[in-house]
Formats: sequence, structure tokens, C-alpha cells
Amino acid sequence: MKKAGQKRTLSSSKSETTRKKESSTVRERIIETAVRLFESQGYAATGINQIIAESNAAKASFYDHFLSKELLGKEYLIRYGKRHLTLIRSLIEHSETPKEFLSSWVKIIRRQLRMQKLYGCPMANLRAQIGSDSPLLAREVQKLTTETLAVLADFLLVQKAAANEKSARLMARRMFSAYEGAIHLWQLTGEAEALEDIEFLSLQILQTSEHN
Amino acid sequence: MKKAGQKRTLSSSKSETTRKKESSTVRERIIETAVRLFESQGYAATGINQIIAESNAAKASFYDHFLSKELLGKEYLIRYGKRHLTLIRSLIEHSETPKEFLSSWVKIIRRQLRMQKLYGCPMANLRAQIGSDSPLLAREVQKLTTETLAVLADFLLVQKAAANEKSARLMARRMFSAYEGAIHLWQLTGEAEALEDIEFLSLQILQTSEHN
Repeated sequence: MKKAGQKRTLSSSKSETTRKKESSTVRERIIETAVRLFESQGYAATGINQIIAESNAAKASFYDHFLSKELLGKEYLIRYGKRHLTLIRSLIEHSETPKEFLSSWVKIIRRQLRMQKLYGCPMANLRAQIGSDSPLLAREVQKLTTETLAVLADFLLVQKAAANEKSARLMARRMFSAYEGAIHLWQLTGEAEALEDIEFLSLQILQTSEHN
Repeated sequence: MKKAGQKRTLSSSKSETTRKKESSTVRERIIETAVRLFESQGYAATGINQIIAESNAAKASFYDHFLSKELLGKEYLIRYGKRHLTLIRSLIEHSETPKEFLSSWVKIIRRQLRMQKLYGCPMANLRAQIGSDSPLLAREVQKLTTETLAVLADFLLVQKAAANEKSARLMARRMFSAYEGAIHLWQLTGEAEALEDIEFLSLQILQTSEHN
């Protein structure tokens, strides 16, 4: 009796694990589909039904994992943020100077453009799409921007490109601003040359900041 | 008989005018509502039903005037574009130097912010919201951006801030880029100081462009 009981427990715990695995696979599929669609066609233009259809999930199981599109939007930002910060930290690690960092950053953007995988800045795109509708997502975007600016400012300080913390924060904001501006001009005009201004404007900022 | 017939024609032509007037009022109300909602809460987040409800139009009459939300989006861009270009031309007319123009431009943005009427750049917001969904609206945004850049470049050339047409076009693009960058940093961080970079970065561009 004891042995049989143990067996039952074992087998039921096994199927529990299988269920959890299947469930996490469905969850993962939903997230991966949402990330792909939010990034390429936009958060506002992507409906829950399309995510369900393209992730091969059952409608009911979607709502087991996510109570709303907004929470899926949050997961999207968290995932994008991790990738984005990992990339920036790795570029920083492999750069001897801020100039080198800038040039590698622009190289990556150009590669995305060539591979038709450049959709603008995911943070700015999402921010523009939610308007005042989602304070939750606006906060997530804000957190991610603040973290990006802190990583950049820290790099500029370590590199002695900025004289002090305040100046480093200002330079980081302006460099991020140059990136946002150029990528939006590219989106507005459809002309790839607009992307050249990332490097041009950022180099201006690096050169002139000590006087401000 | 002749007289009666004339009368009928007259009265039927009168009521035709009235119908046309009423119809143009409904059309106008629909457009004004759409402009307000697209600007404040975003194009993607605004549904046709909300526009119909808030403009007090009958559903059927909405479709008499606009076959799709996209065409209403085009009308929105045309109206915004007219206002926007009129404003820029008027600022240019009242400015003795590019620096003065910049400072008036930033003053207007600050006033919009104080009155809680700053929603970012309507062109960039709409562009981010349509993704690859609407080539028609993407083209409209592109046309409007090109026209804005031409007006700015022309001003820089007349003011001798740029040495030649090519350089004026480049400066105009970079100044527009500085504006887009700063306004997006404001949207991303929620911090009004980010708007200061419009003037700072644009002045850098004005000062340094002759060497590039």
C-alpha cells in the first residue's frame, strides 16, 4: 500500500510538472508573439485576438496568463529593457572612448536598418501609442529611460568625458535626445541619412559640454 | 404656373442649401472632434465610435462624410499641417535672427506645457502609431515634414546662417531633430527640463554647421 501510494504521488507530481511546463511554454509563446508584434506593428495596432491566433494559444489560456493587454505590454517593456540595457552595457565594455561607443551604437542601428528590422525606438513608440491611457506603462517607460540615462552618465563620468555627475547626467540626456531626434527624423522622412545625425549631434555634445 | 414652378425651384434650392449647410456642419463637427481626440489621446487609441458619440453625429452620416478612419486621419494631418506651417511662418516673419526664432518657438512649447496642452509632436506621434499599417498617412507625414524642413532651410539661407542650400537643408534637419529628440525625452522621462535641449542643441547646430 505504502509503495503504491508513493508511486501515485510521484506520477501525479510528474504530471503536475508537465502541466507547468506546458503552461510556461504557452505563456512564453504568447510573450514572444506579443514582443514581435508590438515591436514591428505597434502596441496600439496589435489586438489580443491577433496575439492569441499567432501564438496558437487558446483564448481561455491567454487570460490564465495575462489579465489584460496592458500587463502584456509591461512584460514587453521588461524584456525589451533587459535586451537593450545588456546591449548598451556590452557596447560600453568593448569601447575605449565615448566616441567608439557611439560609432558601435550607430553601426548596430544601420545593421537593423539594412535587415529591415529597424522600427524606431520601442520605448518612444510605445509611449506615443498610449497617450495618457496607461500610467502603468508610462511609468515602465520612464523607469527604463532613467536606467538607460544612468548607465550612459556613469560611462561618461568614468571616461572623464564629463567633469562631474551633474554634467554627466546632462550629457547623457542630450545624447539620448540626439538618438531619439535622429531616429524620429528617419521615421518622419523615410530618409536613412537622418540617422547620421546621431553621431554628429552626440559628438557635438561631447565636445561642447565642458563649457556648460 | 410658371411662377409657382419658379417658387418651387427656389424653395427646393433653398432647402438644398440648408441641407448642404447642415451636412457641412456635421462634417466640421466630426473633423473637430477627431482632431481634438487624435491630438490628445492618440490616433490609434481613438475609435470611430468615440468620434461619432462626441461629435453628436449619426453613425450613418459619419460614413457619408468619411469612408474610413484613415481618411479622417489624413484630414487631421492636413489641418494640423496648415496650423503648424502658419505658426512657423509667422514666427519666422517676426524673428530678426534664427536665435530669436528658436526662443519664440520654445516659448510656445513651454506655454503649451503650462496649459497642459503639450502632447508631443503630432506628426511623430501619429507616425509611431501607424507603424507600417498606413502608407497613405506615412506619406502625408512625410510631405508635411519635408515642407517644414524646406521652410526652415529657406529661413536659414535668407538669414545667411547657412552658406548654401545643401548646408541649410542639413541644418534644418538637425534643428528639427533636436526638437524631436527633446520633446521625446520629455515624453519618456516626464521631466520638463528635457525641453531645454531644443534651444541648447539647436544653438550648437547654428554655431558649428559652417565647419561641416
